[in-house]
Amino acid sequence: MTTQTKEKIINGVNTTQLRENINAVKTDAGLADFKFKALNKWNNGAHNQFTIDEFYGLKNTLRHKQAFVHDCSEPQELLGEDNGTNPVEYVLGGLSGCMTTTLAYYSALAGKNIEKISSEYEGDIDLQGFLGVRDDVNKGYNEIRVKFKVKGDVTEEEIKAIVKNSPVYDTLVRPIKIKIEVEKE
Amino acid sequence: MTTQTKEKIINGVNTTQLRENINAVKTDAGLADFKFKALNKWNNGAHNQFTIDEFYGLKNTLRHKQAFVHDCSEPQELLGEDNGTNPVEYVLGGLSGCMTTTLAYYSALAGKNIEKISSEYEGDIDLQGFLGVRDDVNKGYNEIRVKFKVKGDVTEEEIKAIVKNSPVYDTLVRPIKIKIEVEKE
Repeated sequence: MTTQTKEKIINGVNTTQLRENINAVKTDAGLADFKFKALNKWNNGAHNQFTIDEFYGLKNTLRHKQAFVHDCSEPQELLGEDNGTNPVEYVLGGLSGCMTTTLAYYSALAGKNIEKISSEYEGDIDLQGFLGVRDDVNKGYNEIRVKFKVKGDVTEEEIKAIVKNSPVYDTLVRPIKIKIEVEKE
Repeated sequence: MTTQTKEKIINGVNTTQLRENINAVKTDAGLADFKFKALNKWNNGAHNQFTIDEFYGLKNTLRHKQAFVHDCSEPQELLGEDNGTNPVEYVLGGLSGCMTTTLAYYSALAGKNIEKISSEYEGDIDLQGFLGVRDDVNKGYNEIRVKFKVKGDVTEEEIKAIVKNSPVYDTLVRPIKIKIEVEKE
């Protein structure tokens, strides 16, 4: 005889499974170690492609159902051929996906239904930095502004607090250590 | 009569135009103010989409040749349906595109030819943070490791120094201010 657990789905999130995962991680922290990966190949000029396929989690090498390939490019104003989203835009896109999913998951765990989420992201870059015109200007984003519009059983204050748990948000507001190795062919 | 300038293309980068842009910015810093944007719409659960279309630069609202739409999802191990790259992977992808383009552009400006660039990115996330199991664990990346393989007229040391000028690299190694507004529908 099998005991059938009735799974509780809120906001499209299986909260029964999510709670099981949280409990599993509480008894075996190794299950929480994830490593994400990207491979990049340069085409020419501002055009290159990154591929997302393998990752590591649950103590195993895992794969997506299919490899996802994305083009990076620059618009003509930045001397590219505009073959795709530019790298700094991908960062805003990743932030957008992460804050949105965090809101859906955390609200689901709290038993709160959400009907709609949309959001806008804007980040400032002063190209005097990248172009080497001024040493005292940052090369990356100076500030990022986010506007959420949400329909559901969460208050403005709850939303503001929840979205700060996003892993990409946390990655951006903290300094991250990046180690670089180079091999010449 | 028009004076024809012979444009110098290196690594697919129009270095004549790039030098003109640098000079233009030196005389009018306002031309260097860029704002990048993303719009996100939640679908359900871990599935949402971001659209890249408009940006601001050269004192004008500009648009890409076409809008670029990207799916964000999570693999089944993270309770999604694996409809696309996940948000933290987009950050690695953006980093990859940015460091690669930076290497192509900076080498071109220095008159150095590059034949091939490929690179691998790996970042660690301990999900005890996001899942709320431990308060003392970061929710985002702890460390990112990058491996470049390059064929061209640049030394290993030059490559290591050049790629650190990447705007996404700079965005990740520094803490960024993110302002959040919320509107309830």
